[in-house]
Amino acid sequence: MNWRTHTDYRVYLVTDRDLCLGRSLEDVTLAAVRGGAGAVQLREKHASSREFLALAKALVSRLQPLGVPVIVNDRADIALAAGAAGLHVGQSDLPPEDARRLMGPDAIVGLSVETREELLDAERFDIDYVGLSPIFATPTKTDTLEPWGLDGLRWARAHSPLRLVAIGGVHGDNAADVVEAGAHSLAVVSEICSSPDPENAARRLLAAFR
Amino acid sequence: MNWRTHTDYRVYLVTDRDLCLGRSLEDVTLAAVRGGAGAVQLREKHASSREFLALAKALVSRLQPLGVPVIVNDRADIALAAGAAGLHVGQSDLPPEDARRLMGPDAIVGLSVETREELLDAERFDIDYVGLSPIFATPTKTDTLEPWGLDGLRWARAHSPLRLVAIGGVHGDNAADVVEAGAHSLAVVSEICSSPDPENAARRLLAAFR
Repeated sequence: MNWRTHTDYRVYLVTDRDLCLGRSLEDVTLAAVRGGAGAVQLREKHASSREFLALAKALVSRLQPLGVPVIVNDRADIALAAGAAGLHVGQSDLPPEDARRLMGPDAIVGLSVETREELLDAERFDIDYVGLSPIFATPTKTDTLEPWGLDGLRWARAHSPLRLVAIGGVHGDNAADVVEAGAHSLAVVSEICSSPDPENAARRLLAAFR
Repeated sequence: MNWRTHTDYRVYLVTDRDLCLGRSLEDVTLAAVRGGAGAVQLREKHASSREFLALAKALVSRLQPLGVPVIVNDRADIALAAGAAGLHVGQSDLPPEDARRLMGPDAIVGLSVETREELLDAERFDIDYVGLSPIFATPTKTDTLEPWGLDGLRWARAHSPLRLVAIGGVHGDNAADVVEAGAHSLAVVSEICSSPDPENAARRLLAAFR
C-alpha cells in the first residue's frame, strides 16, 4: 500500500475522544470508515505518551488493513512507534522538513495553514496536503485565526497546487458548498465523533463529492 | 564521541526553565557544565513542539561539542530532530523498547523508576541508567510516589546492576550521603537551576564523589 498515492482523502475524520459520547474511538472510527471515511487523524492533547501510543497502535491495527491510513497529530515518535501511515503537523509543531525527515519518504505528511501566507509558503515542503483551518468559525479549536470562508477557499484553490483539506465548521449541510468552492477533502471532528450515527454522517459528507 | 560509554553522569542537570530566575537555559546550563555537570536533560512540559525543538537544537549545539550529552525528556521525535544524544522516558512515556528502537543503538536511553518492582523490571531493557525518583520528598515533581530514601537507594544498589541516577530532593548538603548510599549520579533541578551560582552548585555536587 502506497499511502501517499492511494489515500482517499474525501472524508477525513479527525478524532476527539472527548466528543465521542462515551463510545470508543475504535467503534466510532470503524463506523465512519464503513460510511466512507478514507483517512483518520488521531489527535490527543491530554493523553500521556504511553496512552497515546497504545491508542495509535490500536487504530493502526484496525484501520490500516482496511486501506485507511492513521495520521498521527504532532507526535512523529508516536507515529513511528505505532507504524502509522502519516503525521499531521501544525504551525507550532515540528517544522515540515523535520517531520518529513523523521517520517521518511513514504509517509503521509500534512500541514495546517491558517493564512494565505502560510498556504503559499507550504509549497516549498514535501507534504501531501494542507489543512485549511478553520473554514468556518467553530468551537472545536479555540486557538485559530480568521476563518477562511468559502471565498478564501476559492482563493486557495486558485493560488495553490496543493491538496486542500477543509477543516473547521464543516458539516453535512454545507459540505457541498465547501466542495464546490474547491476543497479536495472534508475534514471533520464533531460532525462524525458526536453524531448518533457516525457511519451515516460520513456517508452524507462523501455524497457532497457527487 | 560514544555517548553510551563516555558520559560522565556524576552531576546530571535536569532543566526547568520556570526555575531559572529569569536567566536563559543556555546560560544556566553552560555555567553548570563549567562546574562539572556532565549530562543535561531537557525537560519541557508546556512548550509547543516547535519551541521544544528550537530549545533542544540550541542546547545540542552548545553542549555536545563540549562532550556533554543532551538527553531529551519523553519526546523521541524532538531528540531525533535535534540530534540529541539521548532520551529519557518515564513510566507513562514511550515504553523503553520503543524508545530504544526509535533512538537507535548508539543513543543514551534512561528510564525513571519509582518502585522496587519497576527497578527490577528495568533490567530487561537496553537502557543506560535508571532514575530513582524521588529520593527525598520534593515539590518539583508532584506526581511521584513514596520517596526511595537512603535505605531504598542502598537496597537498589544491592539488588540492581543498573547505573543509578538519584533524583528528587538532592542538594549540596545531602549529596555525600546519597553517593555513600550507592548513587552513581546526582540529578538535580532546582539545586542548579535556581542557584544564584549554578557553576558552584554543580561543583559542590561533584565534590560529593571524592
